[in-house]
Amino acid sequence: MTKQTKKQPRKESTDQEEIVTFHYDKVDDFSTWFTEINKRAELSDQRYGVKGLVVFRAWTTVTLKIMYRLLEEDLERHGHLPVIFPALVPESNLIKEAQHVEGFAPEVFWCTRSGADNIFEEPLALRPTSESAIYPLYALWIRSWRDLPFKRYQSVAIWRYDTKMTRPFLRGREFYWIEAHNVFATAKDAEDQVLEDLAITKNFVEGHLAIPIIVLIRPQWDKFPGAVYTVAGESILPNGRFIQNSTSHMLGDNFARAYNVKFVDENEEEQYAQQTCFGPGISRMYGGLIIMHGDDDGLIFPFSLAPIQVVIIPIPKKGAKKAVEERCKELEAKLRKAGFRVYFDNTEKRPGDKYYHWEMRGVPLRLEIGNREVQDNTATIFRRDLRTRETSSVDNLTKTVKKTGNVITKELWRRAKTHFDNSFQNADTFEEICEIINQNKAARINFCTLEMKGLECAEKIKEATGADIRGVKLGEDEKPWGSCPMCGEPATVVAYVGKSY
Amino acid sequence: MTKQTKKQPRKESTDQEEIVTFHYDKVDDFSTWFTEINKRAELSDQRYGVKGLVVFRAWTTVTLKIMYRLLEEDLERHGHLPVIFPALVPESNLIKEAQHVEGFAPEVFWCTRSGADNIFEEPLALRPTSESAIYPLYALWIRSWRDLPFKRYQSVAIWRYDTKMTRPFLRGREFYWIEAHNVFATAKDAEDQVLEDLAITKNFVEGHLAIPIIVLIRPQWDKFPGAVYTVAGESILPNGRFIQNSTSHMLGDNFARAYNVKFVDENEEEQYAQQTCFGPGISRMYGGLIIMHGDDDGLIFPFSLAPIQVVIIPIPKKGAKKAVEERCKELEAKLRKAGFRVYFDNTEKRPGDKYYHWEMRGVPLRLEIGNREVQDNTATIFRRDLRTRETSSVDNLTKTVKKTGNVITKELWRRAKTHFDNSFQNADTFEEICEIINQNKAARINFCTLEMKGLECAEKIKEATGADIRGVKLGEDEKPWGSCPMCGEPATVVAYVGKSY
Repeated sequence: MTKQTKKQPRKESTDQEEIVTFHYDKVDDFSTWFTEINKRAELSDQRYGVKGLVVFRAWTTVTLKIMYRLLEEDLERHGHLPVIFPALVPESNLIKEAQHVEGFAPEVFWCTRSGADNIFEEPLALRPTSESAIYPLYALWIRSWRDLPFKRYQSVAIWRYDTKMTRPFLRGREFYWIEAHNVFATAKDAEDQVLEDLAITKNFVEGHLAIPIIVLIRPQWDKFPGAVYTVAGESILPNGRFIQNSTSHMLGDNFARAYNVKFVDENEEEQYAQQTCFGPGISRMYGGLIIMHGDDDGLIFPFSLAPIQVVIIPIPKKGAKKAVEERCKELEAKLRKAGFRVYFDNTEKRPGDKYYHWEMRGVPLRLEIGNREVQDNTATIFRRDLRTRETSSVDNLTKTVKKTGNVITKELWRRAKTHFDNSFQNADTFEEICEIINQNKAARINFCTLEMKGLECAEKIKEATGADIRGVKLGEDEKPWGSCPMCGEPATVVAYVGKSY
Repeated sequence: MTKQTKKQPRKESTDQEEIVTFHYDKVDDFSTWFTEINKRAELSDQRYGVKGLVVFRAWTTVTLKIMYRLLEEDLERHGHLPVIFPALVPESNLIKEAQHVEGFAPEVFWCTRSGADNIFEEPLALRPTSESAIYPLYALWIRSWRDLPFKRYQSVAIWRYDTKMTRPFLRGREFYWIEAHNVFATAKDAEDQVLEDLAITKNFVEGHLAIPIIVLIRPQWDKFPGAVYTVAGESILPNGRFIQNSTSHMLGDNFARAYNVKFVDENEEEQYAQQTCFGPGISRMYGGLIIMHGDDDGLIFPFSLAPIQVVIIPIPKKGAKKAVEERCKELEAKLRKAGFRVYFDNTEKRPGDKYYHWEMRGVPLRLEIGNREVQDNTATIFRRDLRTRETSSVDNLTKTVKKTGNVITKELWRRAKTHFDNSFQNADTFEEICEIINQNKAARINFCTLEMKGLECAEKIKEATGADIRGVKLGEDEKPWGSCPMCGEPATVVAYVGKSY
């Protein structure tokens, strides 16, 4: 293996212009890095002309489709079936659950007329989330304990008029997610579903995105409007900010009472159902993926999510153009047959420009096929993560690609895990909290309580640092080692504090 | 093979009630048949509470996903890449192409505010179609002839405030489609794309839906607003109505001029691009599928589109329950491994009720496994289309399932093709046109012209019969055999006339 010199200036030439190299520091100058990677790798376009609405370009859309498919398959393995509900929700539906409407009404996009002057009697909300669209029908569909559990999901866009700063994928006014809505006979079944949701998130984010997860129960003041409690699967980005991959909400019978979702139990008695909902944020997870693994040369995709897993670049020497091209086609066919997403880049561009193009876009593996490779019956394999090359025989190529693909994902996981493990630091005092947040890390603190009376302490921290109480770890009874640094009361929990998107 | 008696009364019993059999005549009482099949097979729910918006239940959604996947794969094989544009389009974008806005503005759902009182300076349209969202970005992305052809698609919902009668899948205010938007250097390339679009439609509708297609160039008064011309891939339903599976529009440079989509050609000269767009209506095609192949006992799915291709029903006799169950599981695993969508219905219901349930939903093949089948190492296979049974050895099962699946699709095609071939009838006079339309068929007539001055004749036919001039056959220079029955002028074309959804 040969380690490449990494910091040589790198250029892409085109007929129109010389494009200067991409060299932005992701950690020190994250904003520029993220803006530039969006342009250079053609991930999104922010010139659509409406704040918070971005265009997803092909490279992004292909990846989102892969992500959707993997998560949907896992949901279906766990007994969910897909449905599609309308995007427009009548106002009278939305206002049935008091806390829910209070939470979402300020962010709702309202559709109020059609054509020039057909004003609707009742305005229609663009779904900000679909409880109020779905549960009135659940009230009609669910009759008996035999119908339960009832588990459905839909893969859709939602719209929220977010007034904070927007950023492609991380925070916008239109985003793509899956929402699963489940109904159970007992609170126990519902709470088990919350755990299953988080296991699905963990499996997906850690297994496919190669990003570690921390599972947190949110404070009461930050739960889903109308829920009993909310649990989030979060990651920590390189700039120390939390990103919420998914949330799962225990709704108890709050919504069942508002929307009349009842069933007749085994004793012939009518009961309100217990409900949960689960929202993995596909476009936001994609943002996390871009940011977590990208480096100063562009993106790096974990193998299972890469839109193109292997790109084949011909390096034709004089007189051997045809033989090289033939070999590239053979390898393309061989790898495609083995199930890989492979692309033979036979365009007119120079090999170096092709390298730049596909490295920027994060293709994990590149085969470089020249005269020598054809003669020796080998392929030179470039790994995007380490920027190293190795040689494989053509006979072993399928195996090598599979193995190296896995190794790249593992390397990305190792880097992300190292970062993750270094992201949390204990703080005993208010000053220490400020210091840790300033260092772009998350603080682990003793905290009075996640019940509503803890909000005052949380707000003081927020005001001073911009950081939130993100919650306490689910299922790990972490013992406080002192009192709340804000109010001095005995701490009841160990809370995690940090900024977020 | 044993032919079952078809018209025996059939019942499904549940603990709550006896559900009477499903026996509605699709041709003579289509409306009831369609309403009932939607309820009984749980395809859609019209109780959402907003006119024209329906809920797609799981059985429908699974099928739509299969349809999307097959069509997307074919588009990608033909060089299209997926993108996602925002659902909300600023008014100033929508009004740039004069004919386009005139055609769509009356149907647009307008989003005018967020929250209680944040009135938008510029209203946002829910996309009725996405030319006005996409082409401003194409103007930024496309620079040179090297960027062409540029072929993108998105799989999305669109919204149109249709004032006609709505029906699930066929006509509604929210529907699911794919829209492909393509840019070319020359008009020839663009026109070739229109042909490719129709070939993709034909391949999908005839190959997978098992429904024949007629490809028609629309009259000038019925083209896509802003297009040079429109071509439609249509089918004819059992009630004689046309259904538009897809349309493809030659836009010429009309939109390029409105949205400034230009490129520098090989001679370094700037030119307006030539564009096309293509819209296969997924949810409408699904409606056609339901209606075309369903019979008086419920749905029948062509094999490649069935959400469940094979259902396995255990018929346990005393003492053999376990052996039967084990065998069913084996067969399920075997067929799943072979790539079929298979479901082992091991619920508590009686076999007869299971039969009813899955026949209603159109599962093409059912395996009935009892004591005897276990002992003989066979499976009894029930075909939904003919309602006949045959026996297969377990060893040959995979082959038999594959073969029988194909045979079922062929049988559905044969029925649909027979109907199609009998759907058209020549008419020489106005009276004959009325008669043919009244008989739920389509008329083939001599017609003066599809240019705007033919509109008057078309309107007279519409007024008398409710039928439209759907267009003339693409690529088949059909010779008129007389003069236009409406105005008496010499006919320039052979036109097809019929009612539609």
